[in-house]
Amino acid sequence: MQCYYNLKKVGTGHCTKVPRNSNLEKLRSGYLFPEISRHESEHLRKNPDASLIRLGIGDTTQPIPDTITLAMAEQVRGLSTIQGYRGYGAEQGNMALRKAIAGKFYQDMGIKANEIFVSDGAQCDISRLQMLLGSNVTVAVQDPSFPAYIDSSVVVGQAGELEEETGKYGNIIYMNCGPENDFFPDLSTIPRTDIIFLCSPNNPTGHAASWQQLKQLVEFAKANGSIIVHDSAYAAYIRDGSPRSIFAIPGAKEVAIEISSFSKFAGFTGVRLGWTVVPEELLYSNGFPIIKDFNRIVCTCFNGASNIAQAGGLACLSTDGYQDLCKVIDYNMENAKILVDGFTSLGWKVYGGKNAPFIWVHFPGMSSWNVFAEILKKTNIVTIPGRGFGPAGEEYIRVSAFGRRQNILEALKRLNSFL
Amino acid sequence: MQCYYNLKKVGTGHCTKVPRNSNLEKLRSGYLFPEISRHESEHLRKNPDASLIRLGIGDTTQPIPDTITLAMAEQVRGLSTIQGYRGYGAEQGNMALRKAIAGKFYQDMGIKANEIFVSDGAQCDISRLQMLLGSNVTVAVQDPSFPAYIDSSVVVGQAGELEEETGKYGNIIYMNCGPENDFFPDLSTIPRTDIIFLCSPNNPTGHAASWQQLKQLVEFAKANGSIIVHDSAYAAYIRDGSPRSIFAIPGAKEVAIEISSFSKFAGFTGVRLGWTVVPEELLYSNGFPIIKDFNRIVCTCFNGASNIAQAGGLACLSTDGYQDLCKVIDYNMENAKILVDGFTSLGWKVYGGKNAPFIWVHFPGMSSWNVFAEILKKTNIVTIPGRGFGPAGEEYIRVSAFGRRQNILEALKRLNSFL
Repeated sequence: MQCYYNLKKVGTGHCTKVPRNSNLEKLRSGYLFPEISRHESEHLRKNPDASLIRLGIGDTTQPIPDTITLAMAEQVRGLSTIQGYRGYGAEQGNMALRKAIAGKFYQDMGIKANEIFVSDGAQCDISRLQMLLGSNVTVAVQDPSFPAYIDSSVVVGQAGELEEETGKYGNIIYMNCGPENDFFPDLSTIPRTDIIFLCSPNNPTGHAASWQQLKQLVEFAKANGSIIVHDSAYAAYIRDGSPRSIFAIPGAKEVAIEISSFSKFAGFTGVRLGWTVVPEELLYSNGFPIIKDFNRIVCTCFNGASNIAQAGGLACLSTDGYQDLCKVIDYNMENAKILVDGFTSLGWKVYGGKNAPFIWVHFPGMSSWNVFAEILKKTNIVTIPGRGFGPAGEEYIRVSAFGRRQNILEALKRLNSFL
Repeated sequence: MQCYYNLKKVGTGHCTKVPRNSNLEKLRSGYLFPEISRHESEHLRKNPDASLIRLGIGDTTQPIPDTITLAMAEQVRGLSTIQGYRGYGAEQGNMALRKAIAGKFYQDMGIKANEIFVSDGAQCDISRLQMLLGSNVTVAVQDPSFPAYIDSSVVVGQAGELEEETGKYGNIIYMNCGPENDFFPDLSTIPRTDIIFLCSPNNPTGHAASWQQLKQLVEFAKANGSIIVHDSAYAAYIRDGSPRSIFAIPGAKEVAIEISSFSKFAGFTGVRLGWTVVPEELLYSNGFPIIKDFNRIVCTCFNGASNIAQAGGLACLSTDGYQDLCKVIDYNMENAKILVDGFTSLGWKVYGGKNAPFIWVHFPGMSSWNVFAEILKKTNIVTIPGRGFGPAGEEYIRVSAFGRRQNILEALKRLNSFL
């Protein structure tokens, strides 16, 4: 048998008879962030001497405080001793860490340690959650939003067909978030869905939902029998007193799951550690507790986060570790302020940057991929085109405030002469 | 609205309107290994002074060689420096590690570094692979087998209904593996399926497929247009020259994916590191390369293994690290021999233990859960009932050879007075 793809002979001539998953056929070709990396590499290939400044992928750059890496190194070295060796841990995470997370981030919110599931990161837990939910639920997402929500929704078969004209999937409700509605969905226009993804502080717009906004959302979910999946990966960056957890809102335990992460809070993007909160009060329509299914998925499809990363997580929540991390967060937020002030003084309308390490810059009437490409070409600065986060991201670019100070200042200098 | 489950009022009275995923309703209540842990805890609760010997969950117990933890500790401490800090790595893993895996495990098999995807463990990759395949494929599994294949198959909706009488899912082909067929499926009796899961050395039977057996399987898959998912997590334990990779068989690159792990090879059960090989030659029926979809899943649903674990993996494959690990593996295989000899001298028929750290003991006519419970009650030794690995595991228990020598010897002493 000869094997062809798009009329071209492929491989050695043998095709299996296994059909491609039709859900994957509906996915756009590449996940956003690797696509950006590809553009970056391509630019460097053409301009090998370019001094690139990366304000694209929101990757952390500041060293992890000693307190934390010392704790991890001690855990690592212990693995070479009979006393310190540990094999499999609990799939749900070490109880000491689960307790520390409950104590540090959910004090007075009634979240118990057994409702906290330690993970290898928020992105991974989004997919595990989608496996749990399956194809037979309806979802709403903010537009623009972190692309993993929609992409994982496509993978498990919730999304329907991609409509080329609008760039939207037919079965997904896109909740427009722009300056006209303070970057928060106008719930009076949103139909009921089973699941509502909400990211606050939002990636990419940088908007942190206010008490009032989250309260409305919880009421909306309760009235509709919906589940909110609240992504609080950037909560540590909130400065203005907005809630850092959906569970700060009374009644949220009956309607919400929260996914969070050490990545941006502790510079653990490469170390890999996060958590998900599934309250015992959260029930399917048939009354079955969702926490039981999530636990089953965690045990079946995951095997716990690295015990080294977990030791690091525990050190992050110690008094010293936490204080040290707050300084790193302050540093990144000073970067954000410099970027906000810089773009503003260049005459551009800027959002975000006050409660999140992302700046959302408006280029009215322009294509975001063109703006991205021009900035890369002319200034060797990598940003992210807003369109990559959804149709409503057109005309915007996202600029990350993670970076070393001299690079942030240099970036502004270059933009100054270009924009 | 009041909320009820099985006629009992649940929660605070609010149910969402989100339906439970019907696939999850088909799953048995608990994943095998946590269930065993539950039995273990229950036994300890009733017998707080019991001196438990754990030969159940195949968890590693020997310290990791210094060479390897020193490399990880260096990586960790580097994260506190400007020079050594690393954020996100490539989702597919560090290229140096991918190259080292290709060089150490796939030499002369034509596997390239870009076909190797580093993961946080085999169990996690099984689920990611299932997300990729989706609900519309047919699968065959060995009976008995590692439970994650069937459970993940149920989660994504491939399995059909559980038939209580047989304990089998209606849409899964169970390939019987017992002494009568040398613990390898009689392929002449197996109908075509899209996917064939094969674990070699097998967990739980300990059987390593021979060159002849794997050759037959590759031919069978090629003739049928099937994909073999070969789990080689225990390959490092093979002593008799049987192939350690499916890719040692000519033609396998067109029909197979291999999932493997540092867990049992390097004592990384808690550190979390594994890999999956997806050859470029492996194509769907429409000619599209499967490696492209797997890459998309890895980028969308995963974010790379911990960079600390990856530094450890690289050290495992260094000359010194590898030599040190071989000694640990030898130690475990001496345990296996002691267990095989011990059970045999007690008059029981024993399989496995020659190419794998598992002993598969036959108790003709007896219920495996009863044997498990009796052994736990009378000797304080935890094993695993064969039935937990599938219907064909009835009458067997699996005994793990991971353990400290004095515990293995003590276990035999206790069994001697009991059996």
